[in-house]
Amino acid sequence: MKVEIVAIGNELLIGKTLNTNASWLAKRITFLGLTVTRITVIRDDVSGIATLLREILARDPTFIIITGGLGPTFDDRTFEGISEAINSPLNVDAKAITMIREKYIRYAQKLGREKFKLTPARVKMATIPTRAEPLPNPVGTAPGICIHYENSIIYALPGVPSEMKAIFEESIIPVLRETAGNLSFYESSLLVTGIMESELAPLIDQVMRDTSHIYIKSHPLGAEDTPKIELHITMATTKQTEFARARVEKASTQLIGIIQAHGGKILTTRQLEQIAETFFPSYNI
Amino acid sequence: MKVEIVAIGNELLIGKTLNTNASWLAKRITFLGLTVTRITVIRDDVSGIATLLREILARDPTFIIITGGLGPTFDDRTFEGISEAINSPLNVDAKAITMIREKYIRYAQKLGREKFKLTPARVKMATIPTRAEPLPNPVGTAPGICIHYENSIIYALPGVPSEMKAIFEESIIPVLRETAGNLSFYESSLLVTGIMESELAPLIDQVMRDTSHIYIKSHPLGAEDTPKIELHITMATTKQTEFARARVEKASTQLIGIIQAHGGKILTTRQLEQIAETFFPSYNI
Repeated sequence: MKVEIVAIGNELLIGKTLNTNASWLAKRITFLGLTVTRITVIRDDVSGIATLLREILARDPTFIIITGGLGPTFDDRTFEGISEAINSPLNVDAKAITMIREKYIRYAQKLGREKFKLTPARVKMATIPTRAEPLPNPVGTAPGICIHYENSIIYALPGVPSEMKAIFEESIIPVLRETAGNLSFYESSLLVTGIMESELAPLIDQVMRDTSHIYIKSHPLGAEDTPKIELHITMATTKQTEFARARVEKASTQLIGIIQAHGGKILTTRQLEQIAETFFPSYNI
Repeated sequence: MKVEIVAIGNELLIGKTLNTNASWLAKRITFLGLTVTRITVIRDDVSGIATLLREILARDPTFIIITGGLGPTFDDRTFEGISEAINSPLNVDAKAITMIREKYIRYAQKLGREKFKLTPARVKMATIPTRAEPLPNPVGTAPGICIHYENSIIYALPGVPSEMKAIFEESIIPVLRETAGNLSFYESSLLVTGIMESELAPLIDQVMRDTSHIYIKSHPLGAEDTPKIELHITMATTKQTEFARARVEKASTQLIGIIQAHGGKILTTRQLEQIAETFFPSYNI
């Protein structure tokens, strides 16, 4: 179950904005049991977006999740890029224009404006590829879209984090959950000192060889000569949750023993079970 | 002057780590006058890295800057991926092994260890593509590398932020500066309220039409019905710095007038000149 994430926006490529959207999406998608294989960031450029999307479609991911470039301004070009990539002409969508009209009627009332106008900038947000279904935006104006194309499902979401998250939770998570099945994701982490990452490397290899299907990643937080290293032990499983928990525990215990035998110290340990259960407390996953 | 950034590491694709490296690099590269056209994040997978690198080389960027996957652990596969992409076999580099040996001799003294060993995990960090030149790591162990390949220069840097930054500042900035020439980058920003982004959109278009070569981007920080929008006016110039400053000022003044005429309020304005001068106070740019 491969997922590619695309973030569109010049602000990301000039280093003005940190790509928190991609990171948020990656975390949720991972905990739902799908694998994010690539994150790509590109400019608000129609042919650039179209080219990238064709490249991604050729890799045949199950889902493509695009964020950014759905707003009312001239440089929001995502729908044009998608339209070009999949050869589906842009069209003012009836459902989308209704969503937008209802929002602006409410906004006009709220702001005490006399009139409400469907200006070109507002109609633009409802001008989506003919093959696309609009997705309601619970907290903002621009609808997201969903397109089934060849073997992939393409989603495009606004770049404003609150809107991206709201549409993702409301319209996309249920589909991902159904696709991935009931996956549990176990992780445990250790914070280690007194041993250098280059000394840990062969120890990690040994533990990974001894317990298959687990994954151990080291994250150096200090310098090599004043070492402080986080070790992150993970295993994802589709069914046998007890089995996965036992493996992560076994690997963690073995790792602690080996590290201490080599003069390292364990500063903290953290054991989490079935993270997905607690990860979205508000969303009842 | 196109630059592509590649960040390698599973931790970025599971949402564990925010990609601050790419953002930091993008900001510095932009202020040096080059254009970041794409940021790609992929896993620590040799053939995945090789495939991506071949795709990027086909786009012919001036610079490719890769971060991550240079450390001593089994999942640090970046040099292998580069080696496969450019068909340059891996080899223990004499200069690189000297750099690493000197570091570990010092570390061993500092940590009071009796012996110092060039273990396989340590030698691995000096095992680089034959065509590569190692770049000294002023604050860590793993050297970076530089490869001239076809029309591009490929850099690979460690993923640890302090090491990435130190090598970038010491070995790469001088090359980028020489390539880009003396570029000045002006920006000004306005924080606006009382007007919706969809109302601002045609006003921004008008100001951009009236003052060529400037770029205005709107960043909605509130919701459409409780609007708070940052407008970011920028212009980059290679020579006539006064000209660029005047244009950004003209556009900013015009925008303020139009926004106020449409019922909007300016909350704050910020005017920065020749940001590159003040951007790296420690680096004397």
